[in-house]
Amino acid sequence: MLNKNIVNFIGCDSEYNIAEIVLYGAPFDSTTSFRPGARFAPQAVRTDSFGLETYSPYQNKDLTDSKVFDSGDIELPMGSSEAALDLIEQRAEKILSDNKIPFLIGGEHLVTLGAFRAVVKKFPDIHIIHFDAHTDLREEYLGVELSHACVIRRCWELIGDGRIYQFGIRSGEKYEFDFAKSGHTFINPFNLNNLDETIEKLKDKDIYFTLDLDVLDPSFFPGTGTPEAGGISFTDLMNAVIKVCSKLNIKGCDVNELCPPYDNSGVSTAVACKIIREMILALK
Amino acid sequence: MLNKNIVNFIGCDSEYNIAEIVLYGAPFDSTTSFRPGARFAPQAVRTDSFGLETYSPYQNKDLTDSKVFDSGDIELPMGSSEAALDLIEQRAEKILSDNKIPFLIGGEHLVTLGAFRAVVKKFPDIHIIHFDAHTDLREEYLGVELSHACVIRRCWELIGDGRIYQFGIRSGEKYEFDFAKSGHTFINPFNLNNLDETIEKLKDKDIYFTLDLDVLDPSFFPGTGTPEAGGISFTDLMNAVIKVCSKLNIKGCDVNELCPPYDNSGVSTAVACKIIREMILALK
Amino acid sequence: MLNKNIVNFIGCDSEYNIAEIVLYGAPFDSTTSFRPGARFAPQAVRTDSFGLETYSPYQNKDLTDSKVFDSGDIELPMGSSEAALDLIEQRAEKILSDNKIPFLIGGEHLVTLGAFRAVVKKFPDIHIIHFDAHTDLREEYLGVELSHACVIRRCWELIGDGRIYQFGIRSGEKYEFDFAKSGHTFINPFNLNNLDETIEKLKDKDIYFTLDLDVLDPSFFPGTGTPEAGGISFTDLMNAVIKVCSKLNIKGCDVNELCPPYDNSGVSTAVACKIIREMILALK
Amino acid sequence: MLNKNIVNFIGCDSEYNIAEIVLYGAPFDSTTSFRPGARFAPQAVRTDSFGLETYSPYQNKDLTDSKVFDSGDIELPMGSSEAALDLIEQRAEKILSDNKIPFLIGGEHLVTLGAFRAVVKKFPDIHIIHFDAHTDLREEYLGVELSHACVIRRCWELIGDGRIYQFGIRSGEKYEFDFAKSGHTFINPFNLNNLDETIEKLKDKDIYFTLDLDVLDPSFFPGTGTPEAGGISFTDLMNAVIKVCSKLNIKGCDVNELCPPYDNSGVSTAVACKIIREMILALK
Amino acid sequence: MLNKNIVNFIGCDSEYNIAEIVLYGAPFDSTTSFRPGARFAPQAVRTDSFGLETYSPYQNKDLTDSKVFDSGDIELPMGSSEAALDLIEQRAEKILSDNKIPFLIGGEHLVTLGAFRAVVKKFPDIHIIHFDAHTDLREEYLGVELSHACVIRRCWELIGDGRIYQFGIRSGEKYEFDFAKSGHTFINPFNLNNLDETIEKLKDKDIYFTLDLDVLDPSFFPGTGTPEAGGISFTDLMNAVIKVCSKLNIKGCDVNELCPPYDNSGVSTAVACKIIREMILALK
Amino acid sequence: MLNKNIVNFIGCDSEYNIAEIVLYGAPFDSTTSFRPGARFAPQAVRTDSFGLETYSPYQNKDLTDSKVFDSGDIELPMGSSEAALDLIEQRAEKILSDNKIPFLIGGEHLVTLGAFRAVVKKFPDIHIIHFDAHTDLREEYLGVELSHACVIRRCWELIGDGRIYQFGIRSGEKYEFDFAKSGHTFINPFNLNNLDETIEKLKDKDIYFTLDLDVLDPSFFPGTGTPEAGGISFTDLMNAVIKVCSKLNIKGCDVNELCPPYDNSGVSTAVACKIIREMILALK
Repeated sequence: MLNKNIVNFIGCDSEYNIAEIVLYGAPFDSTTSFRPGARFAPQAVRTDSFGLETYSPYQNKDLTDSKVFDSGDIELPMGSSEAALDLIEQRAEKILSDNKIPFLIGGEHLVTLGAFRAVVKKFPDIHIIHFDAHTDLREEYLGVELSHACVIRRCWELIGDGRIYQFGIRSGEKYEFDFAKSGHTFINPFNLNNLDETIEKLKDKDIYFTLDLDVLDPSFFPGTGTPEAGGISFTDLMNAVIKVCSKLNIKGCDVNELCPPYDNSGVSTAVACKIIREMILALK
Repeated sequence: MLNKNIVNFIGCDSEYNIAEIVLYGAPFDSTTSFRPGARFAPQAVRTDSFGLETYSPYQNKDLTDSKVFDSGDIELPMGSSEAALDLIEQRAEKILSDNKIPFLIGGEHLVTLGAFRAVVKKFPDIHIIHFDAHTDLREEYLGVELSHACVIRRCWELIGDGRIYQFGIRSGEKYEFDFAKSGHTFINPFNLNNLDETIEKLKDKDIYFTLDLDVLDPSFFPGTGTPEAGGISFTDLMNAVIKVCSKLNIKGCDVNELCPPYDNSGVSTAVACKIIREMILALK
Repeated sequence: MLNKNIVNFIGCDSEYNIAEIVLYGAPFDSTTSFRPGARFAPQAVRTDSFGLETYSPYQNKDLTDSKVFDSGDIELPMGSSEAALDLIEQRAEKILSDNKIPFLIGGEHLVTLGAFRAVVKKFPDIHIIHFDAHTDLREEYLGVELSHACVIRRCWELIGDGRIYQFGIRSGEKYEFDFAKSGHTFINPFNLNNLDETIEKLKDKDIYFTLDLDVLDPSFFPGTGTPEAGGISFTDLMNAVIKVCSKLNIKGCDVNELCPPYDNSGVSTAVACKIIREMILALK
Repeated sequence: MLNKNIVNFIGCDSEYNIAEIVLYGAPFDSTTSFRPGARFAPQAVRTDSFGLETYSPYQNKDLTDSKVFDSGDIELPMGSSEAALDLIEQRAEKILSDNKIPFLIGGEHLVTLGAFRAVVKKFPDIHIIHFDAHTDLREEYLGVELSHACVIRRCWELIGDGRIYQFGIRSGEKYEFDFAKSGHTFINPFNLNNLDETIEKLKDKDIYFTLDLDVLDPSFFPGTGTPEAGGISFTDLMNAVIKVCSKLNIKGCDVNELCPPYDNSGVSTAVACKIIREMILALK
Repeated sequence: MLNKNIVNFIGCDSEYNIAEIVLYGAPFDSTTSFRPGARFAPQAVRTDSFGLETYSPYQNKDLTDSKVFDSGDIELPMGSSEAALDLIEQRAEKILSDNKIPFLIGGEHLVTLGAFRAVVKKFPDIHIIHFDAHTDLREEYLGVELSHACVIRRCWELIGDGRIYQFGIRSGEKYEFDFAKSGHTFINPFNLNNLDETIEKLKDKDIYFTLDLDVLDPSFFPGTGTPEAGGISFTDLMNAVIKVCSKLNIKGCDVNELCPPYDNSGVSTAVACKIIREMILALK
Repeated sequence: MLNKNIVNFIGCDSEYNIAEIVLYGAPFDSTTSFRPGARFAPQAVRTDSFGLETYSPYQNKDLTDSKVFDSGDIELPMGSSEAALDLIEQRAEKILSDNKIPFLIGGEHLVTLGAFRAVVKKFPDIHIIHFDAHTDLREEYLGVELSHACVIRRCWELIGDGRIYQFGIRSGEKYEFDFAKSGHTFINPFNLNNLDETIEKLKDKDIYFTLDLDVLDPSFFPGTGTPEAGGISFTDLMNAVIKVCSKLNIKGCDVNELCPPYDNSGVSTAVACKIIREMILALK
């Protein structure tokens, strides 16, 4: 008998019951304000992951030795952010209830909120490590509160001051930077300086790690909705995610804002795949 | 003193108070289910209209003799369909209150609903001429009622049976075709047959004309969110829109679903521009 | 427990044991002489099939009522045509041995030979209906006999004179046309004329149907390796494949030469999807 | 000893002294008003001609039996139209002085003027057959007289009334159409009607044939600087150029306005190649 | 009453009479020798500037606090460099006569000459800071003196030796480098070394700042007519333009050679927007 | 008499008999496993080399002073690796027999094997310097031994242990890295560290230099078949190839894996051209 056509991220073909990490995709981009298309990212990442090897010479580890299940994409309704977030939250909740790490592939950055709602319920003391070009701290965007531009503000509302650490930030309204400076979040602008200190400080905490790939400079990652020049290099990001994932107690994580329609050469998708591989291999 | 940079569709530079037609753009595509990007259409159409001439040898008329005002795009919040529809409705209402014809450039097809709500308030006996590849008669789409796939169903809820005439339809769920056949709307599938009879029948009615450009075959119009092979030719569409606009009492109209990110060669935008020019010139 | 990520052509999710048709992909293009990339077609077709509906208003049938299993792609070694053809032949043989129709999605046209070798073993009296822009009757191409440009010649070697009917042909070397004219195959150049007569003539025969999508005019199907202007329209092709699949005893079939890297707008993939849907629905 | 890398249009490798037709390229587009890039056309046409066969089943002739020399591209100075036209004129003059037919591949349409100046000197009674979407009859364009939008007007100044026959025209300013109607040129708008009568009428005249490929509908030919919907089909154009080239005394000809940067799929270049092949084969 | 559709660079919406800086676009690229398309830059920059914020965390300043008027694009005749330069000069002259800083957005680099002619008339002691990959010091290019490849040579002819400082230069003919070395201009090849010393040296001079964006490495700025590998980074350029604009007496400036048709991902346009924002904010 | 259209890499127009270096292209990519298209590289490189200058300010040398002959591309049969390698070997052999340096432009990396077979026959003590992102040390790839993924392994089989020096490697299966570590080859992973020591060590040896351009980071070189993030910079590569070519006894070399279909902006082709120019200028 022939088999059905199962498609997963390269090397992530464990059975669910033994898996320690579960991938799930959120193909949603309804609130993207500039250039949409991040909805196509989870599928692009699975397909192009086969241009990678399973083995990482950086960590001397192999995905074939990891226990990862790829649960595919959630079918999400465009135009209804609340419904989409509910569905994402349910998937994350299921994964958490089975004591596995939910690893979300967006989609635009708003999808983080669905995952984080589930994580915060199980781990109320959770802290956030946030890599991004943008503050994402707006109160609302053109009257919309469930917007990619507000997602970290929404997360802050769930956990309060002093629990969010933002790196690489180089764009936002003045009031957003002021909001951070007044103690609500910690912002390390422009780069990843102070990451080591932050990791040391948070090493005993539960951590949610949200990675907006536009933290990368557009030379490394052109295929994103709102490219913002002046970002970090691939190597810096790779080293940082390995540190974050291997040294902290990651309870959930996500990688978002790859926008394949603006990735004509495919290199942004290749970058996303490699970052995801290194994160999976580094997760404790 | 230097002038500000005013950008309008070619030849549409009348003053507002003498204008008979008012263009307005709705850069919105949050409910697009397949390939987003129609938000960029109104701006692309204005820019590329300058590849056209103002003179039409088909109608022997010139845009420089028309009285058209281009009011630019409405700033619409991605991710909130109801708010977007309200803003579209307000703009249409303002134009109608000044006894001008509101001519909407989408955006995805859902934007029609905002315009139509305004038109139906002023012209309660309004009928609809609808050109499209898709029925757009769904009750809901993944639980969402304000979706591009439901827009004609939402319009039907406002005006009831026998008032909607759909042409060129070649895609939908079976129940949508059955809904039409049971008398709710008139569907002429695949092509524009029966258009002349319909025009004759409706010649004394108030008409709203909504044109989803994907009624065209993708060979003529590749740059759209959901291309559907088997459509009509440019020449057939041009002749039809001239008839509809010149022989019927058009109280409002729209042209939608141009999706510039999928129009690499620019020909879809050029087609949209030419159709808009011919519609403007034909409007009584 | 969460499910694995199964990806199939829209509506083709039957269980294998009850399926009547089995899809299988051959992501191979090593012998393409002009522009490679057809290897990406089977995957593109599955993904973009979700831009289609399962219901066909042309045939008033729905894929959800069909019994089709999608067995995914065969992993094929680039650079070794014979090994690739063997693997394709094995898959087709398995499907045939279970009394199902093997429906192959290429890949370049050479993949047909693998499938046909299996079919001719089971149905030695098989005839071929071939739609294509090119004769594909070369003896060899730059010394290579297993080439996309020779595939019908290779099939002819298996079944001999008078069993191959070629339609839409408009490109080839002079000697290829002479080869056909001397009675080896029947060529209807440029279009689909004489298709009805051929169907009538072959109605009691076993048939293999091979469709090179470049039979379409490049205006309808730009995304192919060797575009050849002067082809047939989408509507003509759709009507023809419905006839061929519904009126003849199809024992196997294939659709090939979609080349996604040259399909920037996605319309060629959309065309391929719709043709495949109509073929499936028409197969007896 | 190894050979230098000679690149010619497929099958056009005769020695100069025996050639009857001489190809020459004019990679110039400085006056293009909308979308530049036609400068890349001659080179693209040579390269992609190898996706064609040398044999035409339409005319049952083969380029390998023709006597054609490809003299490559003239090095032309961007930004100086007069200097460019002089260089084109010199090349054409050389070819004519050797009693061969100069066959020019543009470039934008202005290049025709250089070639035509040479032809009119040798054949003062020359008439023009002009296929185009645009009238090209402007007196000047933004103050510039040597513009692609004025090229036929400039030719008319050289030969006067009643000697220019324009087909397929569907765009221009009103005064250009009026200029034609007042007897200066003959315009057959929109299509190729009346071509047979024109050929009959001109059958004893010396003819220059200038083909702006944007006469084609953009569905067949998207890759051009100013796409103008509503054009003719590839088959109609192919049949027409075969007639023009085989039935008239062509003293010079050109094919222009292919713009490769807007031909992402390559089909426009393929169309240009095939039209050039058929023209060469048809030339007496 | 509805408003006309005014389009300006983000945050640059002051009234003319109070503006200190005036933007003006020169959509011209007729002399581009390699890949044209810079004509589309000013419009692309305005449109995509809305993907930026008005606030700069680098300078802690906001465009909404600046006094900038965007006067839109000049309508320039393709194919006539002298006429185009005259129109650019007139616009610059008008702005200068109102004691505002003319800030030009090209277009190809030749446009600088028009602006500089106006500036040098008002500020005869003007010096030039020039960032570029190319020397632009040719005497002529294929016989054309008004060419993008000659623009700095033309400027030198207006102001003489020792007044031009070129940075980042890494391409040119040998004689151009020799011309510089013999004392006509100062060239700092490959990078921005010595910029601080130059700024110190010129701090009391009147300065024209011309920025050819191809000084950036193509990894940061692929969308340009003549990409030249080995350039500087975005961050280095940003820091440098802030220094130049804030520490020197800038009397006029320009940013040129963005070529949108080669910027498929949009990141080059985003880079240009951010550089322009930082320059505006830094101008004294 | 007019000349034939000779196309060579810029400045490489010496006569064969006096040439010291001979360029030859191998447009072959049949074994590419991920994204094909490298076949188009040699032609793209010749065409776009004219966007470069012949003069290098880095080495203060000019191609017009070099003695380089461009012998064009070999016509290679897609789908038959052995036949292709034979033809490449013959061309290299011819060049070597005339005591010139064969400089190969691929194509995929497998083409190196053809060239190397010729070189090793003439120079049996040859050593290899190999820059690449990938180990290319597989025993076989999906059963195919003549694969781009195995090419260095095949070369090793010809010359044995300790003669191959690999730099920049960052991707491969674990067993490939182990193969190297066990003494078969020397791998310097990730970067070009130890290059100086290697050059010193090999300074009296005969060297074949094979450059897979994907050693570059995809930000510098997106247009390649298998982009692998984390690579080296353009400047590092340029400096390294100048050292390798100027300080070692290069008996043959190649540059491969440019894949133009994925180089939409053209910058990868520009990078390849510049690297080739610097290599030619540096070769002793």
